[in-house]
Amino acid sequence: MNKNYYAILMAGGVGSRFWPVSTTEFPKQFHDMLGTGETLIQKTFSRLSQLIPKENILILTNEAYNAIVLEQLPMVNQNQIVLEPAMRNTAPCILFAALKIKKMNPNAVMVVAPSDHWIEDEAQFRANLQVSFDLCETEDTLMTLGILPTFPNTGYGYIEYDKLNSKPVKKVVQFREKPDYATARKFIQSRNFLWNAGIFVWSIPSILKAFQTFQPEMLAHFMKGFDSFNTQEEQQFLKEFYPLAENISIDYAVMEKAKNVFVLPATFDWNDLGTWGSLYDKLPKDVQDNAVVNAKVLLENASHNIIRTATKKTVVIDGLHDFIIVDNDDVLLIYPKSKEQDIKVIANKLK
Amino acid sequence: MNKNYYAILMAGGVGSRFWPVSTTEFPKQFHDMLGTGETLIQKTFSRLSQLIPKENILILTNEAYNAIVLEQLPMVNQNQIVLEPAMRNTAPCILFAALKIKKMNPNAVMVVAPSDHWIEDEAQFRANLQVSFDLCETEDTLMTLGILPTFPNTGYGYIEYDKLNSKPVKKVVQFREKPDYATARKFIQSRNFLWNAGIFVWSIPSILKAFQTFQPEMLAHFMKGFDSFNTQEEQQFLKEFYPLAENISIDYAVMEKAKNVFVLPATFDWNDLGTWGSLYDKLPKDVQDNAVVNAKVLLENASHNIIRTATKKTVVIDGLHDFIIVDNDDVLLIYPKSKEQDIKVIANKLK
Repeated sequence: MNKNYYAILMAGGVGSRFWPVSTTEFPKQFHDMLGTGETLIQKTFSRLSQLIPKENILILTNEAYNAIVLEQLPMVNQNQIVLEPAMRNTAPCILFAALKIKKMNPNAVMVVAPSDHWIEDEAQFRANLQVSFDLCETEDTLMTLGILPTFPNTGYGYIEYDKLNSKPVKKVVQFREKPDYATARKFIQSRNFLWNAGIFVWSIPSILKAFQTFQPEMLAHFMKGFDSFNTQEEQQFLKEFYPLAENISIDYAVMEKAKNVFVLPATFDWNDLGTWGSLYDKLPKDVQDNAVVNAKVLLENASHNIIRTATKKTVVIDGLHDFIIVDNDDVLLIYPKSKEQDIKVIANKLK
Repeated sequence: MNKNYYAILMAGGVGSRFWPVSTTEFPKQFHDMLGTGETLIQKTFSRLSQLIPKENILILTNEAYNAIVLEQLPMVNQNQIVLEPAMRNTAPCILFAALKIKKMNPNAVMVVAPSDHWIEDEAQFRANLQVSFDLCETEDTLMTLGILPTFPNTGYGYIEYDKLNSKPVKKVVQFREKPDYATARKFIQSRNFLWNAGIFVWSIPSILKAFQTFQPEMLAHFMKGFDSFNTQEEQQFLKEFYPLAENISIDYAVMEKAKNVFVLPATFDWNDLGTWGSLYDKLPKDVQDNAVVNAKVLLENASHNIIRTATKKTVVIDGLHDFIIVDNDDVLLIYPKSKEQDIKVIANKLK
């Protein structure tokens, strides 16, 4: 395995649209959302470790989840877990992690990957990642993996690439924020738009050069602590300096500004598992198109529901269609799939 | 308190239409169905003990429920609990209990009362019971308390009484089995029909005389063990003889045949709590007519539901109307109120 390959696994999110399963105390990436026996972060780690040495995978997460990470990824060493002392957007934590990696291996190429997405075809993922690593090792390039859109989703950002380029890796024209429906339809019809899945690949020199160009203050801010990184003093520096870093996304801070951004249209099927509805799409269904996780069910006159219980309890339903039914020790949720976006609001209301 | 007053509390039923709360292991009468802090059998015992000495109240139940009875009614002595060695209808167990009471007090008057019904107005209940006891102490009469029907219920038996009789206690013309809807409507319009609530009052001599007349074989069968009753030998006799007794209801065995049957139209409000719907009727409601037991709820676009959880868990519902939602450790039931009669079938299917 190539010792220059590194990964940053982004595992600090809360996933409140998956309430009541996903909570601030125990968010989505630490749950076995698909009922396969593995949690999302376990699946993601295992996918990455096919190409990347296990000890080169850093987990970026929140202090509150440190124990969960160690429990779910027992092969991970405490010093691979990067604990954000404050909730910041992706730019500061990616920069900090990149600097830590630079200190370990200045020739590293790295991938940034969300820990809570669904990717089934691991061979294709590995192949796409290999292409990206190969390119980033030789060229000063910021790479991203884009997802072929299957419908005009208004919940994702899009990546527009240069149509005239016939090579497999495309030059990015621009990043586009979540569009309205009409715009999303136009994107799809244009055939040179991809979904932004938040998967980035670059070499350490390239990403630091980009920060130097577009976020020199942020880079200087973190460089003050460079000597302490990967040592006992790191925590002390972080505690003081991390909360002062700007709250900004890597897309906005760097990717949308840089001219050397390329995208590889991914050849694997992908789902961000952002809502109960997207999870429903990825689960096996019964003849009435009900998707069931854990529960033993007796369903009559019930279709297109997603039913999930914490334990193997018996669920008897008659007369529900297109509902989300989620039950655990503390909460029972019975909610129309069409209103899945409101679940976040309810979760906050009940806090 | 009158030492001649006795009661038989019928507590052997299973109440499978209240599944999943009521189960064979822990039936309805032992649950706090109304969320008042008392189980139905506790409420019934307390109601009866206002007029009847506590030690004169016998509990007729199944061996499997002995421990539950002792736990829920700690004032009850083991020898007040009559355990049926086999599931039989009401006639054999009432006869056996009557013979036990005869041996304790041949001058006793007794009431037979179900343990799982709802009666709120305890003063009126006591007054009606007093009238019945008074009559039965002096006359050779089999009394029953009849309930003024409020709608043409096809799930109850009816008692037709002599219209011409203007006294408060009416002579019964005949017992009528569960009618069809048209017949039930006619009953209501006739104004001399009452619901049979299974509450009977009589003296020991009167009920034994009735058994002698209409069920001489059953009486002879049990008289074989009379010497053993209320002694150590009782169990041995029961084990051998009880399962051989005819499986027949007290209504069919005695009440429908006897000529000295009278009914007192009850002046208390009554509900048999036979189904989730009848429980719903008796529970307090929110502004959208949802009845909630135990749960903390967040309801939107939800009305006329009955919602019950085993613990104080949070229930979030959007888009359900006229549903039964019951959740406990083992089962979640989401079922239309209109199909409440089918719950029994489901409970059996899942056994």
